[in-house]
Amino acid sequence: MPARRTDPAELVERAAKGEPRAVARLISLVENDAPQLRAVMAALAGRGGRARVVGLTGAPGVGKSTTTSALVAGLRARGRRVGVLAVDPSSPFTGGALLGDRVRMQDHATDPGVFIRSMASRGRLGGLSWAAPHALRVLDAAGCEVILVETVGVGQAEVEIAGHADTTLVLAAPGMGDSVQAAKAGVLEIADILVVNKADREGAQATVRDLRTMVGLAPSEPGGWKPPVVAVSAARAEGVDELLRQLDQHERWLEESGELRRRRRARARAEVEAIALEALRARIGSVRDHRLLDELAERVAGGGTDPYAAADELVAAVAGDVPAPLSR
Amino acid sequence: MPARRTDPAELVERAAKGEPRAVARLISLVENDAPQLRAVMAALAGRGGRARVVGLTGAPGVGKSTTTSALVAGLRARGRRVGVLAVDPSSPFTGGALLGDRVRMQDHATDPGVFIRSMASRGRLGGLSWAAPHALRVLDAAGCEVILVETVGVGQAEVEIAGHADTTLVLAAPGMGDSVQAAKAGVLEIADILVVNKADREGAQATVRDLRTMVGLAPSEPGGWKPPVVAVSAARAEGVDELLRQLDQHERWLEESGELRRRRRARARAEVEAIALEALRARIGSVRDHRLLDELAERVAGGGTDPYAAADELVAAVAGDVPAPLSR
Repeated sequence: MPARRTDPAELVERAAKGEPRAVARLISLVENDAPQLRAVMAALAGRGGRARVVGLTGAPGVGKSTTTSALVAGLRARGRRVGVLAVDPSSPFTGGALLGDRVRMQDHATDPGVFIRSMASRGRLGGLSWAAPHALRVLDAAGCEVILVETVGVGQAEVEIAGHADTTLVLAAPGMGDSVQAAKAGVLEIADILVVNKADREGAQATVRDLRTMVGLAPSEPGGWKPPVVAVSAARAEGVDELLRQLDQHERWLEESGELRRRRRARARAEVEAIALEALRARIGSVRDHRLLDELAERVAGGGTDPYAAADELVAAVAGDVPAPLSR
Repeated sequence: MPARRTDPAELVERAAKGEPRAVARLISLVENDAPQLRAVMAALAGRGGRARVVGLTGAPGVGKSTTTSALVAGLRARGRRVGVLAVDPSSPFTGGALLGDRVRMQDHATDPGVFIRSMASRGRLGGLSWAAPHALRVLDAAGCEVILVETVGVGQAEVEIAGHADTTLVLAAPGMGDSVQAAKAGVLEIADILVVNKADREGAQATVRDLRTMVGLAPSEPGGWKPPVVAVSAARAEGVDELLRQLDQHERWLEESGELRRRRRARARAEVEAIALEALRARIGSVRDHRLLDELAERVAGGGTDPYAAADELVAAVAGDVPAPLSR
């Protein structure tokens, strides 16, 4: 009965029992803007809410994949159910994903307590903002207690990941000036925990000191969180216990300070707003089958009107000239 | 009379006569979302439309600034009025601009036929999409025949610049594997002309050959444009004539193929759509002074509803529940 196989409520039920194929199917559905997307999201509401989302970010080569894998091993040793979402960068042009070295993850591929999913970021910024939170909801509903979100890339992708995570780990490595530079340039501001990977290499202590100094110089509020700097050698599984301990500390702080609730609300807010804007964008397209926008663009390009006046016409057509309601 | 000093119509009139202070003031107004922004844009409509917009992009260190300066000198020698918009990357966090080496530009600072403006990209992607096209309209109305838009950064910033330019130059340099790598990774697809700068250095010919091979392998349509690869040494002003010749050729092709009209319409379309979406986003905020969005976020975060159902409520409140009109 093919109809039943994609029944969203049943799929969610099966995913909640930890059935890997149901989890995979659900992620595909929410990732691909499938017709069932809305039904799946509705079925997911009220499920989960227990998963901690931990983002891992840092310059290429610092060992994000290895660190993710070491954290999975450490969490599994503590009996925690783990999800891994590896967001791969795409060329903004081709949409092709650079799948990187996922070999280490194979260690966990047969563990029923670990769900691993690679996602391409779809060749567009903002791709992550859609697909990732949807997939997080699925993994959460599937009973993952911790979800590790690993992203590759610098700049915007890092900011985005922080927007989805409860706790953000920023990775650096000794001898990689770039990675420390990136941390200095501002990634520090999104870091809840700074991780110096490859701690067995020369210069690791200097990198740790350097980052500690920067953290010390950064302004902080009373009762605020000072990002700790943790040295690990993920490939040798050294320092992982300390990193997990710091993750627990941050979790406690998030809950006690009310920051967890604040972050999750802000996330939901951004998600709802993005979906609403996308719906409004679709309405713009549906005004006379795109022809209004085309005509306005033609007039603007020809100098017949300015883009703001043209946008006013478009908004009026989309919103039916209703002034923004003050109450409803 | 301070009121007259910011009268948009008069400012535009003075800018059209080439008065540098009026141009600078107008750019500040359109850049800063000033109250007069709309009046300025309305006054600019119908002015200009003659400026060619040339984007320069490439990895840091390839010599974009030097090349821009050399092009300015070459264009001035031909009596063309030139605008330069240098878009500087900001940390996505601090909003602080890294102002790079603008020293060479000082050569042209006192030339009344050159307008130079640095813009920060405002610490956010999309910042460029607002401020840059507005500033381009001002420079166009001020009688610039060619506007060079130089951006720093990789990936998304490069794609954005291509979206605003009639012609996009992608720069590489010998011995900078990264710059060629970037070109290979897909920047090739936005390049109308590939420039190998520092042509006096070792390996320049190899870089030229490498890029020509790539261009040769790329699919192209009959009557389409094959990006030429031009070797220049901008610091020595060598190869600039050939680059200007290729720019002229591309201009001719743009006009004859109808591609210029197509590109400019697409640009106007994106601009109008972005402004309309921003207006709709503002309406979302104005629904009960953001409280509806806050309440919906709270419900989503608490599992009481899903983000799509919440977005439906928001859209209904903003658009007054009017279904997207099929005609108007």
